[in-house]
Amino acid sequence: MSKPKPDDELVFLPLGGAGEIGMNLNAYGYGPPDARQWIIVDIGVTFGREETTPGIELILPDPAFLEEERDNILAIVLTHAHEDHIGALGWLWPRFKVPVYATPFTAALVREKLREHGLLDKVPLTEIPLKGQLTLGPFDIDFVTLTHSIPEPNGLAIRTPLGLIWHTGDWKIDPDPLIGETTDVAKLRAMADEGVLAMVCDSTNVFVEGTAGSEAEVRLKLTEVIKKCTGRVAVTAFASNVARVETALYAARAAGRTPCLVGRSMIRIYNAAKSVGLLQDTPEVIDEDEAGSLPDANILFLCTGSQGEPRAALSRIARGDHRNVALRQGDTVIFSSRVIPGNEQAIHTLHNQFLERGVELITADQEHLIHVSGHPARDELKQMYAWARPRIAIPVHGEQRHIREHVKLALELQVPEAIGPQNGDLVRLAPGVAAIIDEVPSGRLYVDGANIVPAEDEALKDRRRLASEGAIHVTLAIGAKNAIVAGPTISVRGISMADEEDFELALEELQDAAEAAFQRLKRDEREDDDAVEGALMRAVRKAAQTLWRKRPLVDVSVLRL
Amino acid sequence: MSKPKPDDELVFLPLGGAGEIGMNLNAYGYGPPDARQWIIVDIGVTFGREETTPGIELILPDPAFLEEERDNILAIVLTHAHEDHIGALGWLWPRFKVPVYATPFTAALVREKLREHGLLDKVPLTEIPLKGQLTLGPFDIDFVTLTHSIPEPNGLAIRTPLGLIWHTGDWKIDPDPLIGETTDVAKLRAMADEGVLAMVCDSTNVFVEGTAGSEAEVRLKLTEVIKKCTGRVAVTAFASNVARVETALYAARAAGRTPCLVGRSMIRIYNAAKSVGLLQDTPEVIDEDEAGSLPDANILFLCTGSQGEPRAALSRIARGDHRNVALRQGDTVIFSSRVIPGNEQAIHTLHNQFLERGVELITADQEHLIHVSGHPARDELKQMYAWARPRIAIPVHGEQRHIREHVKLALELQVPEAIGPQNGDLVRLAPGVAAIIDEVPSGRLYVDGANIVPAEDEALKDRRRLASEGAIHVTLAIGAKNAIVAGPTISVRGISMADEEDFELALEELQDAAEAAFQRLKRDEREDDDAVEGALMRAVRKAAQTLWRKRPLVDVSVLRL
Repeated sequence: MSKPKPDDELVFLPLGGAGEIGMNLNAYGYGPPDARQWIIVDIGVTFGREETTPGIELILPDPAFLEEERDNILAIVLTHAHEDHIGALGWLWPRFKVPVYATPFTAALVREKLREHGLLDKVPLTEIPLKGQLTLGPFDIDFVTLTHSIPEPNGLAIRTPLGLIWHTGDWKIDPDPLIGETTDVAKLRAMADEGVLAMVCDSTNVFVEGTAGSEAEVRLKLTEVIKKCTGRVAVTAFASNVARVETALYAARAAGRTPCLVGRSMIRIYNAAKSVGLLQDTPEVIDEDEAGSLPDANILFLCTGSQGEPRAALSRIARGDHRNVALRQGDTVIFSSRVIPGNEQAIHTLHNQFLERGVELITADQEHLIHVSGHPARDELKQMYAWARPRIAIPVHGEQRHIREHVKLALELQVPEAIGPQNGDLVRLAPGVAAIIDEVPSGRLYVDGANIVPAEDEALKDRRRLASEGAIHVTLAIGAKNAIVAGPTISVRGISMADEEDFELALEELQDAAEAAFQRLKRDEREDDDAVEGALMRAVRKAAQTLWRKRPLVDVSVLRL
Repeated sequence: MSKPKPDDELVFLPLGGAGEIGMNLNAYGYGPPDARQWIIVDIGVTFGREETTPGIELILPDPAFLEEERDNILAIVLTHAHEDHIGALGWLWPRFKVPVYATPFTAALVREKLREHGLLDKVPLTEIPLKGQLTLGPFDIDFVTLTHSIPEPNGLAIRTPLGLIWHTGDWKIDPDPLIGETTDVAKLRAMADEGVLAMVCDSTNVFVEGTAGSEAEVRLKLTEVIKKCTGRVAVTAFASNVARVETALYAARAAGRTPCLVGRSMIRIYNAAKSVGLLQDTPEVIDEDEAGSLPDANILFLCTGSQGEPRAALSRIARGDHRNVALRQGDTVIFSSRVIPGNEQAIHTLHNQFLERGVELITADQEHLIHVSGHPARDELKQMYAWARPRIAIPVHGEQRHIREHVKLALELQVPEAIGPQNGDLVRLAPGVAAIIDEVPSGRLYVDGANIVPAEDEALKDRRRLASEGAIHVTLAIGAKNAIVAGPTISVRGISMADEEDFELALEELQDAAEAAFQRLKRDEREDDDAVEGALMRAVRKAAQTLWRKRPLVDVSVLRL
């Protein structure tokens, strides 16, 4: 490895995931401040919710700063295949057009994503074997095998002339992950002996005492629980947790039940796993439409939708409008999953819907080991610090409160320096003491239909206003002599006409207000569409507020004859 | 008490609170099925959220069934002054126009509510003393002193010719509630000896093991925690928990801090409490605008907004836009409160905002006894069943999962019968075995500005669609010969014009689509406004979907010249 030049700096820049859980986007830069070379590590999404971001299914980190640096970006390196680490690739890759590197299972899922975006032939995607190595300009990268809740979770040991960064990605310490090897502790110890400059680390479960628990324990527990069930059984879990899917399939076999996959992403990931040689000894799965012919005691549905996503299989089953799957009194739904913050209400609604049908629920609240987290609890964090012994701790992958708590923990563990960055903080790791040296633009982009829109776009503000207050449209035609020749007509959306007679009277009042406002205009103002629109808008808005105590968006269309 | 007539039945009807926590509305009916007399017990609201019910601040139970029975309703009896028990009175009383009964503190807060609604002189409101008695037709009612998280929580012992109902209202067993007496156990035992037909009981904390804990323990803990603070201190708690407010005021004095009340409801309830003789020995409070002159170590702010309500004092302080109160590095916010389900994200946002300012947070997660619940945990429920020994258990005040669990618990405790009703279930308590004998209309009403609107109103569906998809308005003027003489013009709201040039082109495409649709119409169709509007609406909607992958609401205004 070459020696650092005098002006060289090593910097870390989170643009997603520092201040939120999800939507990870990290960059490392090396070189003099005016000519840094960059690598991007992970490029994920977070999911919109109908409630908080209506009409928005996906949220992306705003990569504006890196777009400016496009010519100096060497590659995008992916640690693992969770959506919050790879989901933005199809949307944002065209802004960078750089090579992409991933291990085989991740690459299989990435290829599907690229196919959907019509990018499969355009993106240079290179598969790196597990424990493989990659050199990108000043960055020498080792893929380090960890354990998590998906196959092939990798940490990255990133060597630079100014020191070694240990980028953990998402991890836990699972002594028996069922799929894949256990944590490569020898490698971590060797890195520590070499000297770890900085560890950039997962903070998700910093508030959780103890350890996450093992997939092997879930296998025992889930098998035991399913054996006891009598009617139909549905298990819901994240499809990407292939070990968990395997567990459900084995447990089905042990209980004399035929498994049936329900939900597109379940089938998609099942196939991806098969394609890389996983799930080889699992029982045959049947299609939804064959399941009806089996006795209740001989079927197990494995479903997507553990987070109460309204369009996922489980929510449709709960509402009773799933095409092929129905559950009723005597049946059981097993949530082999956790409640992701923000989804509490959606999941409670789901629970209540099942309970109203008389369906039994088994959640991790009652049976702890039917789910374990994929992220490190406090004892695992402590173990990782003991293994890696970094000089600088950089907690990421957490809300502000997680990151702050993680900084405290690192300092308690005698890590010499700790910095809890927020998205957009440019952190200098070397030379000298680690410090936030700049703040670059950061934010969120919303995928709104076919558009990618900044979160603070006026259109989205208007939509929030429409949701609260409704809309009024005023239309009038003005003739050659600047007199009204037709209208004003009033069109209202989103304000109740529960009492039709009152509503008709209200429309007349709005019409009168618009007309009076026009009559108050001077001759030259009547010639000016903006003046006409402004005056009518204000008059109608005021009248609506008096009538209904609402502040609808009012638009005016003037037709000139 | 008179003897029952052969046709007499005693029924219970929940219209709010059975299937949700909040928005309680209960009714008891007595008499033959075709001529029942009714009392209403509590008439509360639940709060809308900008996210789930944009534009809706308050949600009321739909009392349609009881409105039909208006002439047979004897009174509204209130158990205590929480909003989810009294909040709908001002909105719904005009539909009943019956007398209202409450104990003094509850009556004081009710009067304020009625004043806001201009109903103070219209509503016959009678104060019942604590442990007082009231006879309403066939119902003989004793107010029974309990403990909760507000002054004057009452259960109701409702005697009828067919048996005694024990309606708990909201309660816990606080051995030292600080304000008010402890649970009237002697009365409960006497009722049991007399024979309790049915107990209608709070289910909120049925999943919580052990006991709720005492306000006295909170007093010790909060005093100790506040003493240790160095900078400014803000405590947030529900204003209606007067014992907690008193605790904060005492703790301020003990720590050499002058208390300052922040937030309208804090001041309102402080004054109401004073007016009924509570909070007599507390230190003087100062106004917000005086607080700035005190050293940091000598001020304690007592704030509303523990649930992250965006317009409450605490959220404004967190955002840094409160007029008089600012918190910074070295200051502390103490959450003497719990997280009400559904508010998780709002509260986490609040936490993160404070942490970003370097403000320390102390929550019940870290210091258990800075808050205790006002609702009975499992051991308290068991104790209540042991005291009251009802023949029938009717769990209310809970979501479906709480009510179901509470039924299980009651049956385990050997209560002979248990029924978990949903809103609208008419439960026959006597004669014979308890059973759900009918389902009456039930639902939610939204306070939308000045209107009260059914939850399923078309206008609210439109608003949700507007929030997701935006709106397009098409305007055109048609002349005498059924030809377009002006327009079509296109007005778009809620769809991003991030790229202005693309947006202009898109508008032209929509205009072309509208015009083409008009040209395709036959002569007689052009004479028909509905036909014109329908055709243009469909054409523009389709074009918008192709352009933007959005499905906006499209309205068309046709002006005829």
